[in-house]
Amino acid sequence: MFIIDTDVHNYWSSAEVLLPYLEPYWRDFLIRGEKPGPAGSFPHGHRPWLHPEGFSRHDIRPQTAEDNYLIMKEKHLDHYNIDVAILTADEPLEASTLANYHYANALVKAYNDYMIDWWLPKDSRFKGSIIISPTDPHGAAAEIRRLGGHKDIVQVLASHGSQRPYGDPFYHPIFEACAEVGLPFAIHFGGQGGVNHNAVASGPTTYYWETHALLSQPAMTHVVSMISNGVFEKYPDLYFVVIECGVSWVPSLMWRLDANFKALRKETPWLKMLPSEYCRRNVRFSTQPLEQPQNVKHLWETLEHMDGQNTLLFASDYPHWDFDAPTNLHIPPAWREKVMGLNALEVYKRIEAPLASARVA
Amino acid sequence: MFIIDTDVHNYWSSAEVLLPYLEPYWRDFLIRGEKPGPAGSFPHGHRPWLHPEGFSRHDIRPQTAEDNYLIMKEKHLDHYNIDVAILTADEPLEASTLANYHYANALVKAYNDYMIDWWLPKDSRFKGSIIISPTDPHGAAAEIRRLGGHKDIVQVLASHGSQRPYGDPFYHPIFEACAEVGLPFAIHFGGQGGVNHNAVASGPTTYYWETHALLSQPAMTHVVSMISNGVFEKYPDLYFVVIECGVSWVPSLMWRLDANFKALRKETPWLKMLPSEYCRRNVRFSTQPLEQPQNVKHLWETLEHMDGQNTLLFASDYPHWDFDAPTNLHIPPAWREKVMGLNALEVYKRIEAPLASARVA
Repeated sequence: MFIIDTDVHNYWSSAEVLLPYLEPYWRDFLIRGEKPGPAGSFPHGHRPWLHPEGFSRHDIRPQTAEDNYLIMKEKHLDHYNIDVAILTADEPLEASTLANYHYANALVKAYNDYMIDWWLPKDSRFKGSIIISPTDPHGAAAEIRRLGGHKDIVQVLASHGSQRPYGDPFYHPIFEACAEVGLPFAIHFGGQGGVNHNAVASGPTTYYWETHALLSQPAMTHVVSMISNGVFEKYPDLYFVVIECGVSWVPSLMWRLDANFKALRKETPWLKMLPSEYCRRNVRFSTQPLEQPQNVKHLWETLEHMDGQNTLLFASDYPHWDFDAPTNLHIPPAWREKVMGLNALEVYKRIEAPLASARVA
Repeated sequence: MFIIDTDVHNYWSSAEVLLPYLEPYWRDFLIRGEKPGPAGSFPHGHRPWLHPEGFSRHDIRPQTAEDNYLIMKEKHLDHYNIDVAILTADEPLEASTLANYHYANALVKAYNDYMIDWWLPKDSRFKGSIIISPTDPHGAAAEIRRLGGHKDIVQVLASHGSQRPYGDPFYHPIFEACAEVGLPFAIHFGGQGGVNHNAVASGPTTYYWETHALLSQPAMTHVVSMISNGVFEKYPDLYFVVIECGVSWVPSLMWRLDANFKALRKETPWLKMLPSEYCRRNVRFSTQPLEQPQNVKHLWETLEHMDGQNTLLFASDYPHWDFDAPTNLHIPPAWREKVMGLNALEVYKRIEAPLASARVA
């Protein structure tokens, strides 16, 4: 089975790994400026919700910087026979929460250079994401153009926490740059707090577990906003990848959206297809965390309603607390080959397709 | 078939019907103060989204104040053989958007008196909702206690737009009063803009049709917030009724919620059951607008996952643009008797059950 894991977090032991990649002005910020924790923590706006256990799996305990790779290799890549691991960073996504967008740009740029220098050469299975801070779309577009030609870069990635829904014209320079360099635009769970809009409808919730359950909502908003604002008419080949936001909410939203569009389409005359048709053509969803009803048939029926066989991409979310193991992913057996790897090949065109013989292994 | 329509909007021709019910101080506000439209319009904060067609069915055109009842009687109550119609007001729900909560309280109080005076005596099929403005929970609780004993009042009703998620302790005085007088607490689509929190996760959307599709989100937040904050442990007999927010999003949210709760329940040690068990016991959903997939079997599978046979209440939303006719409600035939009326009898205990002979008719 050919496996592309579309969400593997490449941790660092300290944000100070970025120091060599920062210009002196910003290096000073990271050394002497305020940080939301002890030395080595990454600058970000504060969230109101604190995870009661911390975000990492308790069995992943790196002692050295090198361990961040070695443990991943042993316990994840080799253990599960992962063929391709798309690195999705971790704290750098939180740069989107900073008011100082110059600093945010400098931090993600430093991360991208560090990732290309330190992570990509370590393992031929690694593919990289360009992390951007969407708070400055023109700065983000410049970063996409700076690195978009790298052969092992496969997507542009931002936090799903944002100041506005992503279809807003404010963000279109990002999609223009993605289309130009031929990369998908992906969003990943994160970026709550700071300058970003409250991530939950109707105001801040109280506990982490309830908030986490509701953090599908920003993804709903972004998918709808990208469709209604005609991003996929402007850039018909652009893939929008939604990572770590759950999946089973998609059919219900599309039913509602199609019905409303049929009644009120005069508001958006530039749309030529139903909302659900744009979703089917241009949007892909990573599986983790895959919902867990008591009866797995209920999940499968729902995934069927969104053509999950063709729209889902496997993700483990290594090494987070709610990690999904490839061996324990509850999808219909007949879909496995597509969801575990082949669907991702359609989206991430720079990843080489395996030889037929390798796929059967 | 015994039919309880849980969402019938009793329109007025002018908000000036409230003048006789307002104390002189507030009467002056409604006569001379700023209103968001011409004379007769109801005070409310502004929404950023304008419906491109207006909210009413184009075939409902009252010319006189009396027409608001006569047309409803002819085209809805008599035409569809509605046995009980729960009046849900219309613009009064928008009082929740006003910064001046004293004025908001005065307006909903005037509406409640007008409704009891003008509407309830007109037709033995009518049951009333006490409209409250949740911005002042103690004022709302006083209004619930003032009118909660009326024999034809069957629920307390607020807009689903609010300043905070409804499980927040800020709102508990409302639930205390509901429990005391023995009435369900219901929320209804509306109350966007003004002082209320943005109704959509991640910031304001752009068009009405996309926003309407996303306006299930506040309902998701409120259901989760009511459960996690232990409202149903404090008030185990309280029904929370969610009106006009769609229904097919419920299973997916509960799957996610149960999984998170199992992992992180230490945050909320006062909960004794799974989130989905509280939802099943204490929360009910009105059907309109019932989602419309191309394949109705997809909808039915989803409704099955939320035990829709026992948790759904029929609503028409008369006379709004996206009205669902009782004769055209796409639910499984075997569920009709429960969803059309019997489930509502469990929630609205003041409504008299029909004689067995009447139910067969």
